[in-house]
Amino acid sequence: MSDALSLAADLIRCPTVTPTEGGALVLLAGVLSRAGFECTRVDRNGTPNLFARIGPKGATRSFGFNGHTDVVPPGDMARWSVDPFGGEIRDGMLWGRGASDMKSGVAAFVAAAVEMAPGLPSNGAIVLTITGDEEGDATDGTVALLDWMEAQGERMSVCLVGEPTSVEGLGDTIKIGRRGSLTAHVTATGKQGHSAYPERARNPIPALARLVDRLSSHRLDEGTPHFGASTLAVVTMDTGNPASNVIPAETRATLNIRFNDLHTGASLEAWLRDEATRMATEFGVQIDLAVRVSGEAFLTPPGPLSDLVSRAVEAETGRKPTLSTTGGTSDARFVKRHCPVVELGLVGPTMHQVDERVEVAQVGHLAQVYGRILRDYFA
Amino acid sequence: MSDALSLAADLIRCPTVTPTEGGALVLLAGVLSRAGFECTRVDRNGTPNLFARIGPKGATRSFGFNGHTDVVPPGDMARWSVDPFGGEIRDGMLWGRGASDMKSGVAAFVAAAVEMAPGLPSNGAIVLTITGDEEGDATDGTVALLDWMEAQGERMSVCLVGEPTSVEGLGDTIKIGRRGSLTAHVTATGKQGHSAYPERARNPIPALARLVDRLSSHRLDEGTPHFGASTLAVVTMDTGNPASNVIPAETRATLNIRFNDLHTGASLEAWLRDEATRMATEFGVQIDLAVRVSGEAFLTPPGPLSDLVSRAVEAETGRKPTLSTTGGTSDARFVKRHCPVVELGLVGPTMHQVDERVEVAQVGHLAQVYGRILRDYFA
Repeated sequence: MSDALSLAADLIRCPTVTPTEGGALVLLAGVLSRAGFECTRVDRNGTPNLFARIGPKGATRSFGFNGHTDVVPPGDMARWSVDPFGGEIRDGMLWGRGASDMKSGVAAFVAAAVEMAPGLPSNGAIVLTITGDEEGDATDGTVALLDWMEAQGERMSVCLVGEPTSVEGLGDTIKIGRRGSLTAHVTATGKQGHSAYPERARNPIPALARLVDRLSSHRLDEGTPHFGASTLAVVTMDTGNPASNVIPAETRATLNIRFNDLHTGASLEAWLRDEATRMATEFGVQIDLAVRVSGEAFLTPPGPLSDLVSRAVEAETGRKPTLSTTGGTSDARFVKRHCPVVELGLVGPTMHQVDERVEVAQVGHLAQVYGRILRDYFA
Repeated sequence: MSDALSLAADLIRCPTVTPTEGGALVLLAGVLSRAGFECTRVDRNGTPNLFARIGPKGATRSFGFNGHTDVVPPGDMARWSVDPFGGEIRDGMLWGRGASDMKSGVAAFVAAAVEMAPGLPSNGAIVLTITGDEEGDATDGTVALLDWMEAQGERMSVCLVGEPTSVEGLGDTIKIGRRGSLTAHVTATGKQGHSAYPERARNPIPALARLVDRLSSHRLDEGTPHFGASTLAVVTMDTGNPASNVIPAETRATLNIRFNDLHTGASLEAWLRDEATRMATEFGVQIDLAVRVSGEAFLTPPGPLSDLVSRAVEAETGRKPTLSTTGGTSDARFVKRHCPVVELGLVGPTMHQVDERVEVAQVGHLAQVYGRILRDYFA
């Protein structure tokens, strides 16, 4: 059994449903310390985080890995074929919650880092940032690690996040960025009245309907070389008025924008407020917005880091990776502020599902890809 | 105590919450029979109705009155100052459920008719149509009376409905018609999907929003000499989707149209379906309508009947009545098919409320107005 596989199985046996540490970071700190890494727990507000570095603090070439040991809850235990925290290997698969998202990824980069450690050049360092809260609010996870590193003068020159990014075969997809996401709750308020006498009331529904039409019809952009066009979806409109003879005082809508790097959360919020104000004036109603930006768009443009990772993937798997910006959120959105970042990991079709599992062969193979990336980086 | 007042109090003592007869029609049939009226119970499907005529069946001049003895429930009995079915007279008021809507009105026209009866010309008749279901579905009330009259060859040349129409002083308002009312439930159906990939879903919300905007912005007409402009109010829009990352498959809206005699329920339904079909095609979604017309617009244009009633009101009260078409529905919408109809009755601020009551003086005064109308009609 490879070091990566046995470490992945051991990590699955740690019950680490967010935000429980479950012994996972203690286990990793032990493995890394024995290999010569300097390990520091950077817990914040009860969230467990582990920082580990080998090589000098001020190294000019510092390769970073980022990952998380926390997992989503197993859900209905009765529907699992195995103990979700058993780390069982059967039928060529490693089974359990976190097998694909992303304890195997963490195990693979830890194994690769430990193997590379003795061969580091004098100006080289490997930095691991591993959090116990990526699946939750993520406010005291990777962000806390980056804050602490900033305060301590610790640096990563580049960073690889080991999330499962592959679609059909290991390494077929590398993520170099992600669209941003903004959610707005819109409330239109008028004046209640009898539907037989609309002139005595002020119906907020036509105002909201026209605003929704305008926003839905607006083309935000045509896309960029690395991003599709930004999208806006109105996901719900609700009044909750059961009486057909009453004009309601209030109605609400929620919309979600997925945006590329032509926009920021702030620029979109300003646009939304501008449109809402125009409509409120036109209809003589009040329109309020509550806007939440859950992530800004970010991109590490194709360059040295993605070239390095792509070449290593091709050498180890024969696959030429696609550079993608699709999909959901990850901690890469935080790391981006610190240094260039890409994401590369397993094929993860069962992530967050019952009977989460990963091919045994993929875990060792991913460690080999990570190992080659490190050797090429420090060559 | 006037005949009208004591009859009104007796009627209040009959517990006639729709559709219970409660003894009210039996009481009236007794009073009318003793005065020489030919009385026939025209019950249908359990709904009690009373037809009464004095004078020949084929009379060329047949003055009709229409009213109802049923009442809405008293509601929270503890909040009443009196027994709602006590018919109590106190502080110059007659108290109880139905005091204003419309047992006093029925009592007033019965008293006036009884008083007029001996003086009827040979070609004259008075016809009373009194139902026990106006407040409910009204499917077997006045409609059943009119159906029966049609089958029997019974006629009213004109008809006065004794509903409370006065606003501030007795007789200040006569109703000569009413707007129609149509309610449409609109359902837009598309295809569910993830809000990050709207191109793979088909969001029904923008289609419904634009339809709502179009319908709300459309000016149905500019009004007519006797009606205000028709109005359309969208009263609710609902999706009920709690997930901001999901595009819903379905969303709904309800709208209510109050329309004048430039439209019919059918013409408006055709217009709505046309607009919905256009929008469904434009957005590639399905839009379904469920339309209910609860009443068509109707009008008895100002003429001999309203002139007669107005002159009598002015002579008895000094007030020159306004001819109005505003307000909620009444059985006049059914009578309209039979003959010219107007509505005239008490000031009714407490109708349907706790402590429903009416000024004692108004009841007798209304009977005098009705009496003068009859005398003038047969003069």
